[in-house]
Amino acid sequence: MDIRVYVTDRAKRARAAARKLATVSSTVKNTALLKMADALVAQASALLTANAKDLEEAKRRGLSKAMIDRLTLDPKRIGEMAAGLRDVAALPDPVGEVVKMVRRPNGMQVGRVRVPIGVIGIVYESRPNVTADAASLCLKAGNAVVLRGGSEAVQSNAAIIQILSTVGVESGLPEGCIVFLDNPDRQAVMEMLKLEALIDLIIPRGGESLMKTVTEHSRIPVIKHDKGLCHTYVDEGADLSMARAICLNAKVQRPGTCNAMETLLVHEGIASDFLPGMIRALREAGVEVRGCSKSRAIVSEIKEATEEDWTTEYLDLILAVKVVKNMDEAMEHIARYGSQHSEAIVTRDYGRARQFLNEVDACAVFVNASTRLNDGYQFGLGAEIGISTSRIHARGPMGLEELTTTKYIVLGEGQLRE
Amino acid sequence: MDIRVYVTDRAKRARAAARKLATVSSTVKNTALLKMADALVAQASALLTANAKDLEEAKRRGLSKAMIDRLTLDPKRIGEMAAGLRDVAALPDPVGEVVKMVRRPNGMQVGRVRVPIGVIGIVYESRPNVTADAASLCLKAGNAVVLRGGSEAVQSNAAIIQILSTVGVESGLPEGCIVFLDNPDRQAVMEMLKLEALIDLIIPRGGESLMKTVTEHSRIPVIKHDKGLCHTYVDEGADLSMARAICLNAKVQRPGTCNAMETLLVHEGIASDFLPGMIRALREAGVEVRGCSKSRAIVSEIKEATEEDWTTEYLDLILAVKVVKNMDEAMEHIARYGSQHSEAIVTRDYGRARQFLNEVDACAVFVNASTRLNDGYQFGLGAEIGISTSRIHARGPMGLEELTTTKYIVLGEGQLRE
Repeated sequence: MDIRVYVTDRAKRARAAARKLATVSSTVKNTALLKMADALVAQASALLTANAKDLEEAKRRGLSKAMIDRLTLDPKRIGEMAAGLRDVAALPDPVGEVVKMVRRPNGMQVGRVRVPIGVIGIVYESRPNVTADAASLCLKAGNAVVLRGGSEAVQSNAAIIQILSTVGVESGLPEGCIVFLDNPDRQAVMEMLKLEALIDLIIPRGGESLMKTVTEHSRIPVIKHDKGLCHTYVDEGADLSMARAICLNAKVQRPGTCNAMETLLVHEGIASDFLPGMIRALREAGVEVRGCSKSRAIVSEIKEATEEDWTTEYLDLILAVKVVKNMDEAMEHIARYGSQHSEAIVTRDYGRARQFLNEVDACAVFVNASTRLNDGYQFGLGAEIGISTSRIHARGPMGLEELTTTKYIVLGEGQLRE
Repeated sequence: MDIRVYVTDRAKRARAAARKLATVSSTVKNTALLKMADALVAQASALLTANAKDLEEAKRRGLSKAMIDRLTLDPKRIGEMAAGLRDVAALPDPVGEVVKMVRRPNGMQVGRVRVPIGVIGIVYESRPNVTADAASLCLKAGNAVVLRGGSEAVQSNAAIIQILSTVGVESGLPEGCIVFLDNPDRQAVMEMLKLEALIDLIIPRGGESLMKTVTEHSRIPVIKHDKGLCHTYVDEGADLSMARAICLNAKVQRPGTCNAMETLLVHEGIASDFLPGMIRALREAGVEVRGCSKSRAIVSEIKEATEEDWTTEYLDLILAVKVVKNMDEAMEHIARYGSQHSEAIVTRDYGRARQFLNEVDACAVFVNASTRLNDGYQFGLGAEIGISTSRIHARGPMGLEELTTTKYIVLGEGQLRE
């Protein structure tokens, strides 16, 4: 089949569903989500069979161990997917919330009401659990969703979506509210990105090349979930044991995430007190430390950091360390090398805490806390579809509210424009 | 000069300015805006001289009378530009506003603070007053701005920007906070749209071909200010004299605007009571009325409406009229032909008012009020940079708040991710 026709047909089904879904009640949506959760568990064996096909193909193609791990479903992971759906069902429905309501001098009442965005396209890579997570959040916020997962997970994703959409329709959701692009051809993504009349928003989740493709080719608005090159700056006079705990957490608690620390900046006034113990603790936790010349003068065993280290998101147990003259130099370094994701200061100084919060440009800025806390659950949003690195619409953890838009409503009794 | 280098150089200046501008105080910004207003008036003769060159060229090129009118500056219009700057100075500064602040179970405080978007690119057409309006709103919200006006207004725009940026720098704003692309080559816009690392948001203001170019080629997020094909539906049982006043206002008060009514939908139960008087009033106001067969059966003098009439944004004293069976048919018509801009119902029925508000998808939905009220001043936003027809970030009148983004700030005392 012509691939443009294939993608357009599916997007049209989602567009038609979106109009109906916008007015479906919270009860119907929540019941559907709970039944989807039950069905995923009840039909686990079908999911595992489909997943086995993906895994076989992945092994045949020689995919990396990490890739195969991300791709793998097991009863525990299926249970987690189901639990995720139940969590989303339990969250308050954002649709219909009146954000603001004012009476104007001419007597008319002007309000802003949350409404669904419409059709959301999600382009993602290998992990099949993203399919259920993303679909459930979009549906809860009243959006139809066009899902385009990684080619290596196509059997698993098809099986998940088969269950979700069958149960969805049985529970009263419109046909087409979850649409899957099962054609693994890369051209399908390119065609999808041109459908600005059918898809309202594209959310890409994945690596740098996916982000680049989407940014360059999309005619549809994009909210990016991009990389994080995050810093922690330990200020002069900081509580050094607090600093050590925060830095260790930010680096090792889960190094493969976008909000993990990649570079540690240390004020020169405390570097010789702080670094030996800090680096020892990091190395004990398996971290390879690479330092600037000043830090190597204090702890000689560490490797030398090069320019490339300041610009690298390791996503691994590796850390770059730099000793700086003062907070200004730290902020300069962050502005130059950071990715405006998660940036932290550890300090006891009120004025510098304020200045760091004001001047550092990032989706989340922390005082005396771990960058790993940049997360929708931690921030109280309930669930998140990811952490937006875009500067418009959603910045930082993107929850149900950010999956809606607003419309103005005006209640009048004959008001005219003078 | 190579046009890519030319555009990139200017965008880099704006990017450098944006970082500084983000922390400039409200007082400095407001003082600068007031001084700019004074300077526009004081240097009116320089503006008029520059404008005369544009007008001479426009006449030489045989531009339409309407185009030449939009292009023309006179002391009154310069005074209005200055008044616009003073209005913006008087509005509250959105930057630094804490939108939300919560304490999480682990004791950390999580807040969302308004911050500037960064660098905003405005691509617009002939009217030179847009230059001062757009620049002042962007600056007040802490954004640097790259302005790209229509080639026919290049001398006028250059003169306005020369004044604004000189006075801006004298008043303490960073050099580069207002950048003008004075090269009329269309390629300059194309290069601008590729600079996703230097420009954070593009706002196009203009006709369909401009919107299309920007949507197709921009790698930068776009907030569109697109056309309005707006309807008013007069329900059975409506107050007919209210309906008449609302429809007349929506059509004739300023027909060239995006929120003017283009199609009138009338319930068949009241059509023969309502249409004769309504159409008479419209025709007396100079409106050409084109109707469906049912409306022509009631008022025979009107022309027949074709399919094209339902899809046309006249922006003129022309109105299409259709008699519908009921509100469902009216809402179907709106969903099919409308542009999701401004949609109104005139009714006395509580249930239908609620249903229309809920089900009609538009940036503003009105009950018993004129669509012409869809406007930032009317809605209480102060000023507006336009009416966004995008579904993300800003929908409807776009004021200072919508020219900002937010960042999360986290105040902790050693919190870690468990």
